[in-house]
Amino acid sequence: MTAVPHAVPTSPDALEAVLEALRPWLGDRLSTSAAVREQHGRDESYHDPMPPDAVAFATSTDEVAAIVRTCAAHRVPIIPFGTGTSLEGHIAAVRGGICIDLSRMNAIVEVRPEDMDCTVQAGVTRKQLNEYLRDTGLFFPIDPGADASIGGMAATRASGTNAVRYGTMREAVLALTVVTADGRVVRTARRARKSAAGYDLTRLFVGSEGTLGVITEVTLRLHGIPECILSAVCPFPTLTAAVDTVIQTIQSAVPMARIEFLDANQMRAVNAYSGTNYALAPTLFLEFHGTEAFAREQVEMVQAIAAENGGHEFAWADTLEERNRLWQARHNAYYASLALKPGSKGFSSDVCVPISRLADCVEATAADCAASSVLTAIVGHVGDGNFHVLFMVDPDNADEIAEARALNDRIVERALSMEGTCTGEHGIGYGKMAFLEAEHGPEGLAIMRAVKQALDPDDIMNPGKIVHR
Amino acid sequence: MTAVPHAVPTSPDALEAVLEALRPWLGDRLSTSAAVREQHGRDESYHDPMPPDAVAFATSTDEVAAIVRTCAAHRVPIIPFGTGTSLEGHIAAVRGGICIDLSRMNAIVEVRPEDMDCTVQAGVTRKQLNEYLRDTGLFFPIDPGADASIGGMAATRASGTNAVRYGTMREAVLALTVVTADGRVVRTARRARKSAAGYDLTRLFVGSEGTLGVITEVTLRLHGIPECILSAVCPFPTLTAAVDTVIQTIQSAVPMARIEFLDANQMRAVNAYSGTNYALAPTLFLEFHGTEAFAREQVEMVQAIAAENGGHEFAWADTLEERNRLWQARHNAYYASLALKPGSKGFSSDVCVPISRLADCVEATAADCAASSVLTAIVGHVGDGNFHVLFMVDPDNADEIAEARALNDRIVERALSMEGTCTGEHGIGYGKMAFLEAEHGPEGLAIMRAVKQALDPDDIMNPGKIVHR
Repeated sequence: MTAVPHAVPTSPDALEAVLEALRPWLGDRLSTSAAVREQHGRDESYHDPMPPDAVAFATSTDEVAAIVRTCAAHRVPIIPFGTGTSLEGHIAAVRGGICIDLSRMNAIVEVRPEDMDCTVQAGVTRKQLNEYLRDTGLFFPIDPGADASIGGMAATRASGTNAVRYGTMREAVLALTVVTADGRVVRTARRARKSAAGYDLTRLFVGSEGTLGVITEVTLRLHGIPECILSAVCPFPTLTAAVDTVIQTIQSAVPMARIEFLDANQMRAVNAYSGTNYALAPTLFLEFHGTEAFAREQVEMVQAIAAENGGHEFAWADTLEERNRLWQARHNAYYASLALKPGSKGFSSDVCVPISRLADCVEATAADCAASSVLTAIVGHVGDGNFHVLFMVDPDNADEIAEARALNDRIVERALSMEGTCTGEHGIGYGKMAFLEAEHGPEGLAIMRAVKQALDPDDIMNPGKIVHR
Repeated sequence: MTAVPHAVPTSPDALEAVLEALRPWLGDRLSTSAAVREQHGRDESYHDPMPPDAVAFATSTDEVAAIVRTCAAHRVPIIPFGTGTSLEGHIAAVRGGICIDLSRMNAIVEVRPEDMDCTVQAGVTRKQLNEYLRDTGLFFPIDPGADASIGGMAATRASGTNAVRYGTMREAVLALTVVTADGRVVRTARRARKSAAGYDLTRLFVGSEGTLGVITEVTLRLHGIPECILSAVCPFPTLTAAVDTVIQTIQSAVPMARIEFLDANQMRAVNAYSGTNYALAPTLFLEFHGTEAFAREQVEMVQAIAAENGGHEFAWADTLEERNRLWQARHNAYYASLALKPGSKGFSSDVCVPISRLADCVEATAADCAASSVLTAIVGHVGDGNFHVLFMVDPDNADEIAEARALNDRIVERALSMEGTCTGEHGIGYGKMAFLEAEHGPEGLAIMRAVKQALDPDDIMNPGKIVHR
C-alpha cells in the first residue's frame, strides 16, 4: 500500500547556481561530501536513504531565510534536518536539493520561569533543554524515544510517554518562528496562553514536517517538577489484563503522568539491552505526579484496578537513579528491539485508537503478529490509545519487508475501522502517504493540498512528503 | 483604529437566483422577513447590525452543503449563525447574502462515556449538552458567558471560566464536520486523542469564524465530574492584591479549576443584577476540583497565598444550589454590567497576556479606565492572563463610543507590548481586524490571506471577517 518514491534529481544547473550563491558566505558550513550527504539522507528506519545534494549548516533564522530565498529563486528543494531520528522518510531528499541542518542553532534563547515558558532555537534537543532547566524547578515533558531536536519534534507533532498527562507538541508549542517558502520570517503567535486572533498559524505549522516552512525557533510551555514522583513497573498475567488495567485507569480519570505498555518480546529486548531483569510478561511502566498525598492517592486507585486484573507485583523505583534507569530502559525500547536481531532495521507501526477500542485493537494485532514470521515487539503510550508494533526486518530481505508491510497495512486498516489514526506521533513523511488518504479521504486531502499549494506554490519545501502535488 | 465596514449589497440577480433555487425545497425554512433578517444581523455588542438578505434554517449537513453549493454557483455570501451571541460583528452581513441558521441542528448525535467524548450537531448549546450529560458523570467544561452553540464556540475558539484547567475549544475539539466553500463535506479527524497525520485540519477550522467553511458537527472531549468541587468568593483590599494572588497561585502550579477576577464596579453590577450582596471590592471567584483530599489540599495552598495578600474572607458555596448561584452570577457579568446603564450596549476588550505581566497590565488599564468618562467594569479569566474591560456605551453617543474605542486601542497596544494577544476568546469578526494586523504583522497576515484564498477563492464564506481579500 505504501508507495516508495524514487529519487528524482534536481536540475544540475539550478543546483550549481544555488551552490555558487551559498558557497561564498557559508564557506565550510556548506558541504557536498558524500559522507555528510549520506548521513543527512538517512533516518532511523528501514526506509531507503536518499541523500540531499548538499548540506547547509545554518546558524541563525536570517541565515535560514537567505538560504531559502536562494533555493526559491532557482526552485531547488529544501529539506530541514534536526537530529535525523524520524521514522517515515521525512528527511529523504526524494527530489534532491539542499538539506538545512539546524543542529548548530542550539541556543536556549530565554527561559521565563515566572511564565513557565521558554524560547529555544530549533536545534536544541529535549535532553539539552531539560538539563538546562534542572535548577529552575521546571521541566519540558515531551519525550519521544530519541533525543530529538525541539524543531523536529514540533515539525512532526511528536509526543511520548508523558503525553497522557501533559499533551503532545500540539499543546506544548505556544509560538513558532518559521521561514516560509518565499524566505520570509513569520512569528506565528505571541506568548499568551490562549488567543482567538485569527487562524491558528502555530497549529498549522506544528506537524507540517517542513512542507510549509522551516521552523527556526520554538516557544514552549513548561511544567513545574511535581513535588512527588512515584514510578513503578508491574507485570500482568496476560496482554489483555495489562491493557484492561490501562483502560479502566483512564476511564477512572486518574491523572496518570505515564502509563506505558510493553509486551513480553519487548521486555526480553529491554532486559538484554538495558541489563534489567524484569519478568518476561506483558508489563506496565507507570508514573504518578502530584503532591505527596495526591500521588499516593492515585497509586492506591491504580493498584486496586491492577489487582483486579491480576497485576500484584509493583516494583517501585525508590531513588532518582532507579527512576532514571527505569525510564531510560523504556526510552531505549526501539534500539533494544533492533538489538534482538543484529543487522536489522526498524519498521514501526504507530496507530492510535479511542481508548474503548484499545483492547480489541491490541489483541487482534498481537494475534496477527504471532501468526507472522516477522520478529515483532509491541510497546506503546497506551494511556492515549497509541501503540507501536516494531518489526525487526533485514533490509536486504524483500520478502520479510513485504510481510511486515502487509502486517502493517492490516494494523492501520484495523485502527482506521475503529475511528483511530494511522499515526499517533511519528508523522507521515513519505512512508505513510497512502494511509493519509485512507484516513482523511479525498476531501481532507484536497484541503491539505490546497494549503500546501497556497504556502509553497513551487513545491520546494520538503517535497514529496505528506501530500503529493 | 477599528475600521467599520459599510454594508455592500449582493447582486440582486444573483440573490434572486439563489432564493429561487432554495425556495422549493426549504419552503418556510427560508425567510426574507425583516424581523428574521434583523435578528440574524445583530450580535450582543455595540456593533451596528447588518442583516443578511435571507435566512435559511438548515436541518442537516447535507442541506448545508446544498445551500453552500447553490450560493457558490452564484457567488452569494454565506454567514453561519449559531445563537448570535458573539461580540465582534462576526455575523454581520457586510456584503449581504444568505445566513445559514444552524439552531435547528441541535441533535446530540452520540455520547461515548467509555471514551469520554461525544459528537453533537453545531446548533447544540453548551447548557443543553451539559443537561443531557448530567447522568453520565461527565461534563463539558467550556463556558463562555452566553449559552452559545457548540458550533459557534468552535468557530470563535471560545473559552470561559474553566479554561485555566480544562483548556479552550482549541483543546476540546477532537474533530469537526465542515462544509467547505465548494459545498463538499469534510471530516477533519477521527476520534483518536492524538494524531500526527498531516496538517491539523481541526485546528485550522477552530477559530476560523465561518470564513473557511461552515461547521455542522463537532466531536468534543468530555471530562469526568470531579468527586469534590469547592467554590468560594474572596474579596481583597486592592486590585493588585487580588491579581497578585492569582499570579502566585498559577506560578505555584495549583491546578485551579476556576480563578476569576471582578473589580469593584463589576461586583456592584453583579449584586444589582443577581441579587447577591458581595462586598464591593476587587474579588476572586474560585473553584477547586479533585478528590476530596486533593481539593482540600489545593484550598489550603490558595488560602495561604490569599492571606499573604490580605484576602481572608473566603465565602464558601456549601450546596449545589449556592454553587450554581455563584457561577450564574459570574456568567451574567456582561448582562449585569449593561444593566448598570439602561439602554447601553456592550463593548468589551478581551486582551490576554503572559501571567507575569498580568498585574502590570491590569493596573495600568484600571488607571486608564478611572481617568476616562466611560463607565467601565473589569472582569476576567485571570488564571489564563485574560481579562475584559466592559465599556457600557450609549449607541447613539458618538463621542462616548469614540472615547471607548480610544481606551480599547490603548488596552490592546499595552497587551501587545507585553507579548499578549488582542483577543483571548472573543475572536476577530470585523471589529478587531486592524488589531489582527498589529498582532501578526504583514507576514502572518499574508499567510492567513493565502489560506483564505486557497480554501475560499470566491470569498463567499463570511466575507469581510478576520482578513480582507
